[in-house]
Amino acid sequence: MAKEKKLVEAITSMEEDFAQWYTDVVKKAELIDYSSIRGCMILRPNGYAIWENIQKELDRRFKETGVENVYLPMFIPESLLQKEKDHVEGFAPEVAWVTHGGLEPLQERLCVRPTSETLFCDLYSNIIQSYRDLPKLYNQWCSVVRWEKTTRPFLRSMEFLWQEGHTAHATAEEAEERTIQMLNVYSDFCEQVLAIPMIKGRKTDKEKFAGAHSTYTIEAMMHDGKALQSGTSHNFGDGFARAFDIQYTDKDNTLQYVHQTSWGLSTRIIGAIIMVHGDDSGLVLPPRIAPVQVMITPIAQHKEGVLGKAFELKEKLGAFRVKVDDSDKSPGWKFSEQEMRGIPIRIEIGPKDMEANQAVIVRRDTREKIAASLDNMEAAVGEVLDSMQEEMLKRAREHRDTHTYSAAGFEEFKEAVAGRPGFVKAMWCGDRACEDTIKEQTGATSRCIPFKQEEIADTCVCCGKKAKTMVYWGKAY
Amino acid sequence: MAKEKKLVEAITSMEEDFAQWYTDVVKKAELIDYSSIRGCMILRPNGYAIWENIQKELDRRFKETGVENVYLPMFIPESLLQKEKDHVEGFAPEVAWVTHGGLEPLQERLCVRPTSETLFCDLYSNIIQSYRDLPKLYNQWCSVVRWEKTTRPFLRSMEFLWQEGHTAHATAEEAEERTIQMLNVYSDFCEQVLAIPMIKGRKTDKEKFAGAHSTYTIEAMMHDGKALQSGTSHNFGDGFARAFDIQYTDKDNTLQYVHQTSWGLSTRIIGAIIMVHGDDSGLVLPPRIAPVQVMITPIAQHKEGVLGKAFELKEKLGAFRVKVDDSDKSPGWKFSEQEMRGIPIRIEIGPKDMEANQAVIVRRDTREKIAASLDNMEAAVGEVLDSMQEEMLKRAREHRDTHTYSAAGFEEFKEAVAGRPGFVKAMWCGDRACEDTIKEQTGATSRCIPFKQEEIADTCVCCGKKAKTMVYWGKAY
Repeated sequence: MAKEKKLVEAITSMEEDFAQWYTDVVKKAELIDYSSIRGCMILRPNGYAIWENIQKELDRRFKETGVENVYLPMFIPESLLQKEKDHVEGFAPEVAWVTHGGLEPLQERLCVRPTSETLFCDLYSNIIQSYRDLPKLYNQWCSVVRWEKTTRPFLRSMEFLWQEGHTAHATAEEAEERTIQMLNVYSDFCEQVLAIPMIKGRKTDKEKFAGAHSTYTIEAMMHDGKALQSGTSHNFGDGFARAFDIQYTDKDNTLQYVHQTSWGLSTRIIGAIIMVHGDDSGLVLPPRIAPVQVMITPIAQHKEGVLGKAFELKEKLGAFRVKVDDSDKSPGWKFSEQEMRGIPIRIEIGPKDMEANQAVIVRRDTREKIAASLDNMEAAVGEVLDSMQEEMLKRAREHRDTHTYSAAGFEEFKEAVAGRPGFVKAMWCGDRACEDTIKEQTGATSRCIPFKQEEIADTCVCCGKKAKTMVYWGKAY
Repeated sequence: MAKEKKLVEAITSMEEDFAQWYTDVVKKAELIDYSSIRGCMILRPNGYAIWENIQKELDRRFKETGVENVYLPMFIPESLLQKEKDHVEGFAPEVAWVTHGGLEPLQERLCVRPTSETLFCDLYSNIIQSYRDLPKLYNQWCSVVRWEKTTRPFLRSMEFLWQEGHTAHATAEEAEERTIQMLNVYSDFCEQVLAIPMIKGRKTDKEKFAGAHSTYTIEAMMHDGKALQSGTSHNFGDGFARAFDIQYTDKDNTLQYVHQTSWGLSTRIIGAIIMVHGDDSGLVLPPRIAPVQVMITPIAQHKEGVLGKAFELKEKLGAFRVKVDDSDKSPGWKFSEQEMRGIPIRIEIGPKDMEANQAVIVRRDTREKIAASLDNMEAAVGEVLDSMQEEMLKRAREHRDTHTYSAAGFEEFKEAVAGRPGFVKAMWCGDRACEDTIKEQTGATSRCIPFKQEEIADTCVCCGKKAKTMVYWGKAY
């Protein structure tokens, strides 16, 4: 029992200290471990398996829209990085530089990719000649490095895993269409699979990607009311094409610049899964992304027939990702370990259950216990997983909506941000100065100009001048 | 027609200049493109899709043996790399060094991983405490960097993609068992999926991995008779465990060092697929690994009903990886493009075929044409793919066997290597000096000490002293 106590005690309560709760969970659920390199994390099997499921689901969705995977080098020569002015200004201060290869100093130093626009542009300038070569819809799964000063597991680390899509199109319209299409792929994936509702919108100029004409974003609200930018999709217009001379001959035999996009989603999203769904017992994983959906836990497993029955049940549940925990730990210890890992369902089966031809389904989010006949387990498990998935999304949406406020004036805005963490919907004149003032005085940044606009007031919440647009504001990770 | 001519002319004949043929094929089949960084290649969609299929197949086979995936950082602090003496000596001369992060010089420089033994050891020393924590069977899919002087696409590049498995075990026996088990996974995969027969064996001390007790290898013969080391599996004994202090408490409460293994297979294997199976028209992909197995090519596609029929056929062939080439290129151009890409089957369907309720299956390796009824296409395609897969392996094995020679004496050995490129089976006394002499005088290196031993003679082929073992020798990539 000493050990059981230890596992539960290891987690700080989320209401007491949310940041500490988060750190405890990622470590105790064995999602990550720290490494010898400052700011670099190790993805352990429980963490990496979530990423594998994310990859599988997203990759399928990308390919359905015609995207092809490629792999480009991890190094970018300094001269290549410098070709697009805004881009290099945005990234140069936070890259890692390789200066020596083997025992020799390099003639030109190389940065470890923080993102790969410049490499894709270099490739596109070589392989795009004619309108027949368009569109190019490339994506890569890789890791990137950004030399961050302060880091947190998943949310901000020096190296992280992601996918970056890079496309080239004949027209500005096609590029814009693709930018929005991929934002929708992200948003649908997050809602349907991760049970995380997203606010879709455009970033202000201040918050947009270095070198982009426009950046679109999906923003999620964490349990503590703070925002997490969860995926972005950029329209570059022909800016990079001009810098890298990416031209094609159109049907009228005229040279034209291509129009480009890029879009990325990273392991950061695992941080969102933790902070949207977790509770004081640990992780709660949405069934559709959970590496193990069902853990069968034999009770009194030394008794005759129990283990056999457990493995028989596993075979019957072949439609799900299911395991049997037949380790020599006590049932109580197994339960708290499974809860810490966020496994959606545990099934308890012991001698008494066997007598009654039943097993007990325990749902991770509500702790509800359902006795189900062994003849009907597949349907019963399917139903519980489906309703858990659905209700997790519903709860996350309700939490977000009840923590979203409207503010017409600045005092109201300040109160909203100070007292009740969450999103604030407020009008904005479009001036950078107001955005800066709001950040300075409240700590909230503009999350996005949502596609779904509302008319909160006529005037800017900060300066009182005529408002142009409604913006979501919030403190952010 | 000018364009068609160009595509065929673009390839050098393999008998004329095999090295040039290889370079032409990887470029013209659009497997890779060169990048701005010396020695780093770009994997284009046709090339990356092969790697994706390799990953999928191997990953499934790994997981069936209990392996779990993880992700470790790409950087290794210099002090960590230096912990195991042989290991650092082997790798330090060929790593890339990061010396600056952002605008600041680093206190300790970091190398970009050339392989991750040191990082896995560091992790294992933190997470292994008890016999209950063993075995650890971790693997990661990632890229690694080795600062090579001369590079060739797939075969030797500064950065390449691979998987590296790293395991820790309670006993020496278990570690040895796992080392051999993974070598067998590689070998079975290569034979069954890539249609490449492998010689399995142990590396000599000269050729083994830096820091390993023993290295096992699978060796394949390319079309030009040269060897390609295609995958390796290492048993480290407790050497790394002692250097990194990885100890566990056994059931008797005694501290013990773990025993470790590592095993890797890289994009190099794509070079083997090309060089074992290719011909003067380009790639020939084994059906089980081909990203596109069947390309339906409409003939006179502007005629009524042809395209419709082609797509209808695609639906019927849903069990395979199938595409329709409905581009506006000429059929002849499409054919040579598909042959260049190595697509196992093309199906021609035009108005005349439709009248006869048939389509024509053309097999990539033999060019055999088979008219098949449209009512029976799934079975017909399945049969052709199966026999193509089988015969490709058979041909590769025959080619290897007819280019494998035995040599009892050194003169015989030299003749074999000089006149007829291939493998030479010859006896060896076990002395490094003879291995060096053979390399100096013939250019051949020891490929492996095969598991399947033969008694070619009593004495070492080089020094004439008593022989210990039979070795495969050959010139290698």
